[in-house]
Amino acid sequence: MKIDILTLFPEMFTGVLGTSILNKAKEKKIVEYNIVNYREFADNKHQTVDDYPYGGGAGMVLKPQPIFDAVENLKKGEGKPRIILLCPQGETFKQSKAEEFSREDHLIFICGHYEGYDERIREFVVTDEVSIGDYVLTGGELGAMVMIDSIVRLLPGALGNDDSPVLDSFSTGLLEHPHYTRPADFRGMKVPDILLSGDHRKIEEWREKESLRRTYLRRPDLLEGFPLTEKQRKWILEWEKDK
Amino acid sequence: MKIDILTLFPEMFTGVLGTSILNKAKEKKIVEYNIVNYREFADNKHQTVDDYPYGGGAGMVLKPQPIFDAVENLKKGEGKPRIILLCPQGETFKQSKAEEFSREDHLIFICGHYEGYDERIREFVVTDEVSIGDYVLTGGELGAMVMIDSIVRLLPGALGNDDSPVLDSFSTGLLEHPHYTRPADFRGMKVPDILLSGDHRKIEEWREKESLRRTYLRRPDLLEGFPLTEKQRKWILEWEKDK
Repeated sequence: MKIDILTLFPEMFTGVLGTSILNKAKEKKIVEYNIVNYREFADNKHQTVDDYPYGGGAGMVLKPQPIFDAVENLKKGEGKPRIILLCPQGETFKQSKAEEFSREDHLIFICGHYEGYDERIREFVVTDEVSIGDYVLTGGELGAMVMIDSIVRLLPGALGNDDSPVLDSFSTGLLEHPHYTRPADFRGMKVPDILLSGDHRKIEEWREKESLRRTYLRRPDLLEGFPLTEKQRKWILEWEKDK
Repeated sequence: MKIDILTLFPEMFTGVLGTSILNKAKEKKIVEYNIVNYREFADNKHQTVDDYPYGGGAGMVLKPQPIFDAVENLKKGEGKPRIILLCPQGETFKQSKAEEFSREDHLIFICGHYEGYDERIREFVVTDEVSIGDYVLTGGELGAMVMIDSIVRLLPGALGNDDSPVLDSFSTGLLEHPHYTRPADFRGMKVPDILLSGDHRKIEEWREKESLRRTYLRRPDLLEGFPLTEKQRKWILEWEKDK
């Protein structure tokens, strides 16, 4: 996969793309990162990329020209890249969207900073407007990093064998069950007996139940439309009674 | 505000905390960042921080001891810090949560990486479990950076006067209206006439209407419980008819 990132702050990406899974995926040639400072595409002598908004008001607006030209330049190869604008007005990013993007060959991320985007960028350049959540960030850079991390770890070979993405929270549709490791007694806080029992059938059932319980208590919205088994339905009825 | 970050990958934070608003806020002494590698608190000779899960299964689990000890060490000062665990099972982060955290004096972020957390960390150390969205990331580091960015920009003095957080998307409850800047005609793509009219009353009304329209079309969920004015209600009725 080829990932281009358009930003005014290239140095923000070094630490994140150079560490852990994102770096290993690059070294294994599963992914290629290309960070472009779109200020270099500004065709005015001061390399200005923003300007005052028409109609007045606070804040600056990113001019169309530098971004149109930078994207044109990146699209010269074959194929049709997905061109993703990070912005609070975009579609909320979800695991299913990460899976969708992980099947593409070429992604281009456009990151603004402080400013708004000239609407013509949205209308005529971008294929996807995405928001990583309902909160305001200083720029699109962190949103791009979050999306890249969630997408790249899904690429075949990116994770080691021990870290299968299949059992992740959200991938199964439920939150994960509690985990415990040694010691069995840490300063008086104990691991549940069942996990020390060696009875694997019972342990599996406990995990399934606790995973469902945690989802039921914390994120009942995830259970809407979830295909519950007969056993799971009974557990939920018990918990409803206990309320 | 004092922000401690517990991580196994301190180098991930350098680029993000050293750039733009997050760096300026540090230079203005509005915020102080302290990055702690909790591997240094491991009391075994190999500085191991994770171990196999009780009950079997793939993946490793973060041991309680290094995190208990690292947090104890950071809590030595006065005051009661909020101790935030980044995890997919947490409460979904929202702008209102950023505002709540921005009123605290001391935040401690705990970032896991690949692994799950021993449940005793959740139960006995942490005050808040937070998820930045319904997608899976390699670690908690990006989640911590996202939260820190959204929180620090709300601290008094962190943003310049021109970048008031009051008009942000989500802060007003609606998505932002479209923005345009020069040129008025960019390769045949034109700015709406009204923004060039100089009629500020009409421009304000256009912006209010487009802000509402964008929210209505893209994020109708944000309008649930939103205190609509009579005029806004009429606009929505028009759009409902046009559907």
